[in-house]
Amino acid sequence: MVDVLPTIAGVPGFKVAGVACGLKKTGALDFALIVSDTPCTAAGVFTTNQVKAAPVLLDMERLKQNSDRIRAVAINAGCANACTGQQGLDNAHQTARWVAERIGCAEDEVLVMSTGVIGMQLAMDSIRRGIDLAVDALGENNWETAARAIMTTDTRPKLASAELRAASGQSYQMAGIAKGAGMIAPNMATMLALMVANARLAAPLPSLLHVAAEQSFNRIVVDGDMSTNDTLLFLTNNQSGAVETPAGQYPDAARAVSRRLAQDIVRDGEGVTKFITVQITGAPGSEAARQIANTIATSPLVKTAFFGNDANWGRIVAAAGRAGIPLDPERMKLWMAAGETDAAAHGLLLFEHGMPASYSEAEASAIIREPSVSIRLDCGLGEGAAVVWTCDLSHEYVSINADYRS
Amino acid sequence: MVDVLPTIAGVPGFKVAGVACGLKKTGALDFALIVSDTPCTAAGVFTTNQVKAAPVLLDMERLKQNSDRIRAVAINAGCANACTGQQGLDNAHQTARWVAERIGCAEDEVLVMSTGVIGMQLAMDSIRRGIDLAVDALGENNWETAARAIMTTDTRPKLASAELRAASGQSYQMAGIAKGAGMIAPNMATMLALMVANARLAAPLPSLLHVAAEQSFNRIVVDGDMSTNDTLLFLTNNQSGAVETPAGQYPDAARAVSRRLAQDIVRDGEGVTKFITVQITGAPGSEAARQIANTIATSPLVKTAFFGNDANWGRIVAAAGRAGIPLDPERMKLWMAAGETDAAAHGLLLFEHGMPASYSEAEASAIIREPSVSIRLDCGLGEGAAVVWTCDLSHEYVSINADYRS
Repeated sequence: MVDVLPTIAGVPGFKVAGVACGLKKTGALDFALIVSDTPCTAAGVFTTNQVKAAPVLLDMERLKQNSDRIRAVAINAGCANACTGQQGLDNAHQTARWVAERIGCAEDEVLVMSTGVIGMQLAMDSIRRGIDLAVDALGENNWETAARAIMTTDTRPKLASAELRAASGQSYQMAGIAKGAGMIAPNMATMLALMVANARLAAPLPSLLHVAAEQSFNRIVVDGDMSTNDTLLFLTNNQSGAVETPAGQYPDAARAVSRRLAQDIVRDGEGVTKFITVQITGAPGSEAARQIANTIATSPLVKTAFFGNDANWGRIVAAAGRAGIPLDPERMKLWMAAGETDAAAHGLLLFEHGMPASYSEAEASAIIREPSVSIRLDCGLGEGAAVVWTCDLSHEYVSINADYRS
Repeated sequence: MVDVLPTIAGVPGFKVAGVACGLKKTGALDFALIVSDTPCTAAGVFTTNQVKAAPVLLDMERLKQNSDRIRAVAINAGCANACTGQQGLDNAHQTARWVAERIGCAEDEVLVMSTGVIGMQLAMDSIRRGIDLAVDALGENNWETAARAIMTTDTRPKLASAELRAASGQSYQMAGIAKGAGMIAPNMATMLALMVANARLAAPLPSLLHVAAEQSFNRIVVDGDMSTNDTLLFLTNNQSGAVETPAGQYPDAARAVSRRLAQDIVRDGEGVTKFITVQITGAPGSEAARQIANTIATSPLVKTAFFGNDANWGRIVAAAGRAGIPLDPERMKLWMAAGETDAAAHGLLLFEHGMPASYSEAEASAIIREPSVSIRLDCGLGEGAAVVWTCDLSHEYVSINADYRS
């Protein structure tokens, strides 16, 4: 197991900055820059939305052609640069060009990320100012400021890091920052995450990153929406001199750091009061299990019941029933437990044989009042299993999203 | 065109009642009975949820064997009789048996419907009392009381009727009541509806009903959930002596009455402040168009933006982009208009060529403040089209569903 800290002390070989350049009306931090001392091997995972923001299109193209020579990533909040046509693409290229000029590299060695309002062009004078301020502020210990600069409706920065040792003996660091909040669904969402490591992996980085994303960012649901901008980037240089094999700590660390960031996104989801672990077992297959888990996790009726501290398990069973998977209510079993745990082993049995189990309503009520609740639904049909992390749906979610642009 | 009234003056040949039998803690009306003077031809459309409530299972079975001799329908609110196993089925049968005994028919000539909390057994002493009270109260003019008795979180009863004339010269009546509120999604939802007519159609009733449902109840979305209990029943006797061919007013009337009830369900959805018509054109096919429309209509981000009177059309485009249909943003066009209308003909163009159109934000803001708003998204790809009616997502929705069982 890899120990993950919720802070980043620094990753030698990378310098970062977070500044305020005027994209957010409030004057808050809104521009971050991450620069590697030497060219990085990089990989990315991107939104599957058919409507992709300009920075997503730019990064996808660039990583196809140039994944072994990435030097920097520029990230802005306040404007998503999505649904902005050719001008949006031109602005994304301009951002990369200005960064390249200031740090002294080629334009195609710079990646960009944006988050914020859709359908608005980037204010390029602000971007220019952001780059100038950020380049001057670059340092090894500014990770928290950078994490703050990419926030939108997030209430706190999300950081994770791990100190590791390669088989070859050298120690190295892996770290990541992320922003999330609303619009989070499996297969990526208005979710930006950047991970770095100062060691080389003696195996393809893209497949490692996909496996890590699959078990972290693609397992979280806030509201079921999926954004035009979702991006997870991983930059690795070799400042530590360590070279890791796939048998080393590298894959575990990538999974642990990304899972920590992903779960932090759920815990800090818009208006969230409760962290919910949805575990499905006994489904006809693992894809079926996942579909059932996602249907439960996106159901407004399930989510509002959790917000209301109402152990209304009938809504969970009903949501499973409309997931599009053949199910037999007589074979289903449903448990609920406090905390992040296997509810079948440590929780209360609520439903079996197609009807309510005999349980104490007071006990169920005590469980659902906890800030973290796990449910397990066994379908009694096969070997398919899946876990998804989600949250409740509160008044605050509605308030935040009704007033987002004002 | 068929004129539909939001009231029911009476349908000769049918007697109805709505009474309070104690299933609702508040003492409100909670039991309705509809009795035909003579045996009816009946048809039903039921939830496609894999978890079906006991009354749904009973009605489906009964209509398979006995669709030409239905005499009565008993409907209770307060308890859904879903996830209740064998005891639930026994209770549904017992309800039918008691009704049959009191009105003098065979048990298999009675259908039942239930709505309310899932996972709780029916209080059969209340049901018994409800049947006794309702049989004594039966009359031709109690339709509004009956419509009130099937309400759960509905704020008003939903009624519709039409006065029609058959090709053979006789006049006849068609009418319906419905309850909806939350948990409404295409393919039926916690939606109960009962339609009656006192004329015979010289064509199969089930196919007529399916076509009507497809263009009404299956086109509405409140929260995207789909219940265990959704049922639409249509009972027809021949009290008027009229016999209609499919070329007569009968199909149009069935569509008009069911559409009126379906739209009323949306207008009275939990916490609804805005009625939204989502029109998709130019999709690769009609199923694709519908999938795009449903994804927009269920998006929490789209729904909260409407609640906030924020013409945040980027969220509509982003929702379309994640519907699982290949789309080209460059070919998409989006319009918005006040009222229920074709927004492309009468509204404001917001998005084309992959970027914002040049429109006045003040004009967009004035449109979205209306209680009824239409959007049209043309995908620019093919001939597929679909219309879905939906609503916004408000604080009140969260309040209602967080506290439902308390």
